[in-house]
Amino acid sequence: MRIAVIGTGNVGRTLAGGFAARNHEVVIATRDPGETAARDEYAAWAAAHPSVELVAFADVSDAEVVANAVGGKVCLEALAQVGAGLDDVVLLDLSNPLDFSAGYPPSLFVKDDDSLGEQIQRAHPGARVVKSLNTLNFSLMVDPEDKLGETTSVFLSGDDEAAKDVVRGLLTEFGHRDVIDLGALSTARGTEMWLPLFMRVAGALDTLEFNLRIVRS
Amino acid sequence: MRIAVIGTGNVGRTLAGGFAARNHEVVIATRDPGETAARDEYAAWAAAHPSVELVAFADVSDAEVVANAVGGKVCLEALAQVGAGLDDVVLLDLSNPLDFSAGYPPSLFVKDDDSLGEQIQRAHPGARVVKSLNTLNFSLMVDPEDKLGETTSVFLSGDDEAAKDVVRGLLTEFGHRDVIDLGALSTARGTEMWLPLFMRVAGALDTLEFNLRIVRS
Repeated sequence: MRIAVIGTGNVGRTLAGGFAARNHEVVIATRDPGETAARDEYAAWAAAHPSVELVAFADVSDAEVVANAVGGKVCLEALAQVGAGLDDVVLLDLSNPLDFSAGYPPSLFVKDDDSLGEQIQRAHPGARVVKSLNTLNFSLMVDPEDKLGETTSVFLSGDDEAAKDVVRGLLTEFGHRDVIDLGALSTARGTEMWLPLFMRVAGALDTLEFNLRIVRS
Repeated sequence: MRIAVIGTGNVGRTLAGGFAARNHEVVIATRDPGETAARDEYAAWAAAHPSVELVAFADVSDAEVVANAVGGKVCLEALAQVGAGLDDVVLLDLSNPLDFSAGYPPSLFVKDDDSLGEQIQRAHPGARVVKSLNTLNFSLMVDPEDKLGETTSVFLSGDDEAAKDVVRGLLTEFGHRDVIDLGALSTARGTEMWLPLFMRVAGALDTLEFNLRIVRS
């Protein structure tokens, strides 16, 4: 598939590398490609991933899947810059509405009766938004069982069933074997509100390398 | 220990029965004992648990541990009625701030920058509040592995370390083998905000008989 990853941080690079390793056609997008390319951390990653082209947000076009991997606070603005628009695109949204302005742990700037996933959908009514992978650290998004040693759970929220099937396929390629479809996009309120517990478990365990497994009888 | 369970619903009866089976001295408290005793569901349970005395909220006294097992919306009022006061009592708080007024799934009437656990602590500054067991269905609170077949996780939040040790001991007696101490009582904001995801997982799986396991590398 033709996949554009929006954001060149840990999450964006992890996804772009994971998709490229599975033979998808991948671009990674940033606000200012010149500035990003000059950063040592990005340059080292880019040298190891020569098939992934770096483009400006405004130059993203022809993608079948766009992955939103920029920070929650700035992602609406970043997505507004995506050039060809997001109509009919499967928009895999990994964002969380984290507000670090009062320190750690962060609070949420959208919650409970709305979600950032729904805000993105309202801003781009033609996009096929699927919330997923916002519940675990970037280091566990690809091949999670290599690090955790057992199957853990990830979630899907979205109003477009075919788009959820596309994302489910990509998650399966990444090695996720327990993908729970929560239903409509409004269920993203649930996964986004997992973050306050996630952050406190991270503090207690002193690691971000954990995930939840939904154990049922 | 002398344990008073506040609330005679599913949660209260499960706890009271579990504590009594482990040879604690247990009373179960309700607003109107005459009304509660006349209910068929309660009467059947009471017949099977003759050692558990039914008392009015106002007649609770001499308890070392008080378990708050009434609904979130009414628990502050119920706790205000507890007769002997809650000074120096280990107050095991299982409540969640669920608001069903707009239907299912419920929203939360306290969240993010406060928690119901902290509200209870502020209302009873002498109590030693420990939030726990608010993250799973009543049917899994005692002997969880009998139904789930593997170890799952529960949490502790509280400002009094000795009180948390008491609760940890009770959880261990109940068969919980992964008890994660999240830290201060303010971390109850995290476990209370798990409920929106819990409710949506319950909807997707069509069961309340599940729990999360925190899988770490």
